[in-house]
Amino acid sequence: MGTKPIIVDTTLSPFAKLKPVPLTNVKLKDAFWAPRIELLLTSTLPVIYNKLEESGALDNFRRILGKVQTEFKGYVFADEHVYKWLEAAAWLLSYKHNYELEVKVKEVIELVKAVQEPDGYVNTRFYGKPEERYKNLKWSHELYVGGHMIQAAIACKRTGICEKLFNVATKYAEHLCNTFGPGRLEMPDGHPEIEIALLELYREIRDKRLLELAEFFIELRGKGKLDGWSYFVDNKPFKQLNEAPPGAHAVRFLYLTTGATDLYLEIGSKDLWEALNRLWLDVVNKKMYITGGVGSRHDGEAIGEAYELPNDRAYSETCASIANIMWNYRLLLATGEAKYADIMELTLYNSALSGISLDGKLFFYVNPLADRGKHRRQPWFPCPCCPPNIARLLASLPGYFYNTSIDGIWINLYASSEAGIEFKGKKIKIEQVTNYPWEGRILIKVYPEVEDEFAIYFRIPGWAEKAKVYINEKLLDMPIRPSTYLRIERLWREGDIVKLDIEMPIKLFTSNPMVIHNTSKVAIERGPLIYCLEQADNPGVDVWNIALTTESTLKAVFEPSLLNGVMVIEGTGYVLEYDAQRLYTDLGKFSLRAKKTKFRAIPYYAWSNREPGPMSVWIPLLDLFEKKVVRKEN
Amino acid sequence: MGTKPIIVDTTLSPFAKLKPVPLTNVKLKDAFWAPRIELLLTSTLPVIYNKLEESGALDNFRRILGKVQTEFKGYVFADEHVYKWLEAAAWLLSYKHNYELEVKVKEVIELVKAVQEPDGYVNTRFYGKPEERYKNLKWSHELYVGGHMIQAAIACKRTGICEKLFNVATKYAEHLCNTFGPGRLEMPDGHPEIEIALLELYREIRDKRLLELAEFFIELRGKGKLDGWSYFVDNKPFKQLNEAPPGAHAVRFLYLTTGATDLYLEIGSKDLWEALNRLWLDVVNKKMYITGGVGSRHDGEAIGEAYELPNDRAYSETCASIANIMWNYRLLLATGEAKYADIMELTLYNSALSGISLDGKLFFYVNPLADRGKHRRQPWFPCPCCPPNIARLLASLPGYFYNTSIDGIWINLYASSEAGIEFKGKKIKIEQVTNYPWEGRILIKVYPEVEDEFAIYFRIPGWAEKAKVYINEKLLDMPIRPSTYLRIERLWREGDIVKLDIEMPIKLFTSNPMVIHNTSKVAIERGPLIYCLEQADNPGVDVWNIALTTESTLKAVFEPSLLNGVMVIEGTGYVLEYDAQRLYTDLGKFSLRAKKTKFRAIPYYAWSNREPGPMSVWIPLLDLFEKKVVRKEN
Repeated sequence: MGTKPIIVDTTLSPFAKLKPVPLTNVKLKDAFWAPRIELLLTSTLPVIYNKLEESGALDNFRRILGKVQTEFKGYVFADEHVYKWLEAAAWLLSYKHNYELEVKVKEVIELVKAVQEPDGYVNTRFYGKPEERYKNLKWSHELYVGGHMIQAAIACKRTGICEKLFNVATKYAEHLCNTFGPGRLEMPDGHPEIEIALLELYREIRDKRLLELAEFFIELRGKGKLDGWSYFVDNKPFKQLNEAPPGAHAVRFLYLTTGATDLYLEIGSKDLWEALNRLWLDVVNKKMYITGGVGSRHDGEAIGEAYELPNDRAYSETCASIANIMWNYRLLLATGEAKYADIMELTLYNSALSGISLDGKLFFYVNPLADRGKHRRQPWFPCPCCPPNIARLLASLPGYFYNTSIDGIWINLYASSEAGIEFKGKKIKIEQVTNYPWEGRILIKVYPEVEDEFAIYFRIPGWAEKAKVYINEKLLDMPIRPSTYLRIERLWREGDIVKLDIEMPIKLFTSNPMVIHNTSKVAIERGPLIYCLEQADNPGVDVWNIALTTESTLKAVFEPSLLNGVMVIEGTGYVLEYDAQRLYTDLGKFSLRAKKTKFRAIPYYAWSNREPGPMSVWIPLLDLFEKKVVRKEN
Repeated sequence: MGTKPIIVDTTLSPFAKLKPVPLTNVKLKDAFWAPRIELLLTSTLPVIYNKLEESGALDNFRRILGKVQTEFKGYVFADEHVYKWLEAAAWLLSYKHNYELEVKVKEVIELVKAVQEPDGYVNTRFYGKPEERYKNLKWSHELYVGGHMIQAAIACKRTGICEKLFNVATKYAEHLCNTFGPGRLEMPDGHPEIEIALLELYREIRDKRLLELAEFFIELRGKGKLDGWSYFVDNKPFKQLNEAPPGAHAVRFLYLTTGATDLYLEIGSKDLWEALNRLWLDVVNKKMYITGGVGSRHDGEAIGEAYELPNDRAYSETCASIANIMWNYRLLLATGEAKYADIMELTLYNSALSGISLDGKLFFYVNPLADRGKHRRQPWFPCPCCPPNIARLLASLPGYFYNTSIDGIWINLYASSEAGIEFKGKKIKIEQVTNYPWEGRILIKVYPEVEDEFAIYFRIPGWAEKAKVYINEKLLDMPIRPSTYLRIERLWREGDIVKLDIEMPIKLFTSNPMVIHNTSKVAIERGPLIYCLEQADNPGVDVWNIALTTESTLKAVFEPSLLNGVMVIEGTGYVLEYDAQRLYTDLGKFSLRAKKTKFRAIPYYAWSNREPGPMSVWIPLLDLFEKKVVRKEN
């Protein structure tokens, strides 16, 4: 049996319009993602492994085997860091073989195997203490940790690393089925995640009990089991939620919506879909940063009220961005609707990618949109959930690029690459040549094994308002609408070339006026990237004092030696000068002097990779109200 | 011996320029404060007492006496609520006698007396557990609670309620002197407060050890005893602090600065003063809301970075405002500088007064400057530190009105009232007739016991840019500068009338541009009051969409039946209309329609006393940049 490294295996999911393409079928050859994935092997995964050692997360396993004499170390969910590292390593090994990493992976798998208790339970914190198990599920994260173990196990199986961990996972799942459910233990974990894992395991072994147990956990929410706290999304039954609850822990909320979407892919419930749709609209239209980040509050790492989107104190946890990508990918699988791919791409290139440094060794937990220079990426955290999470996202990234449907092939993301896609039993090679995300011209070469008539769906991004499409150099005479998949059905012949020529103008974005944090301000966007002003590029002025006008000129310039090569935005604006002594000044005595200045903006993801200094995404536009308000005199 | 209800007794303090006037010497007869103090007796104190019963705070005492069989209830510092209620009741009883309240006060004093352990220790949480005492001072609040007991005891003594509690306090202080200090237990409480209490007790009994112990606790900070956390203001030695530390718990910080100023009043250390001055400038110029509130973060109830002043998520805890008043009052006592009285008045009328409802029965813990209508005053809190704190502030308010110095009498606050002030052994009656804070005309009638030459210092508020002063109807030919005390030295005769005629124009205030939350926005101020837009006054439009221009007309109108009588601001502005579907819009496609509208603003303190709805202090000013930016073309 050939291995199929698939991240979300909707092959048999009745309500999934889109089916998976194994990530090993996609070879990234671009200058943006491919080096980042290379860094996983050379930097990120070794760095994380060392931290798993230093922090005692691995010793938590060895301790049980009597190999070390220590206390349990770290938070109660410390095992998850090991499992997410394992999952990342498995995906990575499937397309970048590395002996040393594989040895480590197998050693770790042996450790996990060894700590499974006879009845299937796996958790180093509660090992050998059956009386403590599941006594404090609100905070103990036992199922959350178990879920990550299952996901690592599935990755190991699908990538062909080994089946050992998978056997641990199925035995563990059997234990869960025996323990939880109607008439058994009726209690959810305070931190969702097991739902995603159970449904993916269901896809692997088709044991209906797993699906039912995932559904049971989702339905348990809103029944007061978690004291009705919004933090746990326990304030209402999931299907009755009308909004992402203010105060909900952002990662808990987004893992729950991800799991619920996984459930929808299997059972297709109409009211579940309606709830998911309401929640998505609420997040995207009221509670999401322009970078794709979710989570407005440090307090409770939580989602805020509608339009509560502070920039300096944005939480926008890296894990929440990753969860936002996972959720939107599943919504895309359900529908084939490009609006979900838009959010996926936005979040990927901005709030998620911000979570890791250019050298792959430092991480953001929190991703603010304005800072004075104190916020810096760290090698590790007391709660190190984000570093291995961004690693597993990047390691599985090629798996997000393509899908298939009953009638064709879907292209979700763009990067120079080669992919081999099986469609109706035949292989189609697809080659992308592009300088994406810096340029919007994408050549897509199609090489079907045999000439065949089928559709290819090309994603036209939401930001792509002007695009032309050529097939074998002939302009396609069809309206190209942003935020759609352009369906081209034809007899595809070897070497057919589709050229997407998407204009990538620099745009300024304003906020809904209800976002009181962004009054009179604009953000710079070009293609999928959100830009920011960082001090390092703008010596001599405090970037918080830079302002634009509607007459500002903006120009994109590629800087190959800057920040590993980035398209910067060079512009003209003003720097505001003022007497900065007092906080509040009588308007009658207030004036600003604005001095012309040039400035340079960089992609948001790349900030904080040089010397510390102020940064801001949202920039005052001096004449926004003057030019954009139509005054009606009645 | 006559009792002297004095809140901060600087009579003998060598570094206090100003000396106290007992609060009973001041009879408020105005329509603003006097009814609020009346409400303390009829509503606030009874309501709080009932909550002390319901919450078990009183039973925590009775439990020890075997009168009830319960566990200790509430937070570890639950005793403090009882002590602050006691302190408030004592001040109140001194000028509003009430038999029922006095009976309760004496019952509670008996309870406190009964739980004092033989060695002087008093704390119901740790009663009878000497082995647990002072083991976790970082969080146990033992000295914080003890400090409030001392302050209640001083209030009971100075108001002549009884000496019993004072005897408990002095015995407790003896215990502290025996327990803490160099070579003894060298550990501060995580929550400052004991410093203030020890220094006030020192002023009462002149035992030098109390002063030394307070100094010892202040000097202990920044030595890592509290793990160096900024939260505890342990990041640096107090005298080396250059700023209110970001992340510092606002109330802890301000209680510490208050205690340190009390220390300065006694010892006059230059480097202590310099530190206090640096911290004051930092708070006032970088970290204070326009309402006087301090604390920008829900996370840690903490002070933020410079200029981090979000409106919707302002924390601005009521207790922090009270502490800000206490601190600035002590700075005023040290210097006689009006800038401190300005902050005291600003905070009193706005962020502190916001902490209590018009009916005196409901309380804010958190005081945001923008809200969508969810934030409402509550009858009590799991951590009910604020309700009894605002009660003790209001109950002691008359004590803040006047001071004396070596050469005269100081008038800090204005309200219709009669005061009898002893100056150099003679009595001077001062009568104020004014409609303050609604109007700036203040008649001050002076009735010296015998004609005498001395100075009266009239506070000219910082907002008072145009003021005329008349003595016996004759215009005073002197420059009247805002934020000063106007010194008038003359032979004062019975019936002399000084008229302060302070213009009270409506002003718009802007923020320092570094406050990125307030870009393009203004706040309305009139006299000492900050205004807000509340939904209840502006039907049919969402007040978050109301905008002003520099051409807006603004008019003050007194509404006797609204909110117990308030001066409202009626104005013309615009309501912004837009398609509210999306969070972010391409500037090219963005436009707002502005429709003329009338609006009404109310004093900030009075919001949330009617039906819930949006509220905002900071209002967009459509042409702020257009009119206030001078563009320089080089």
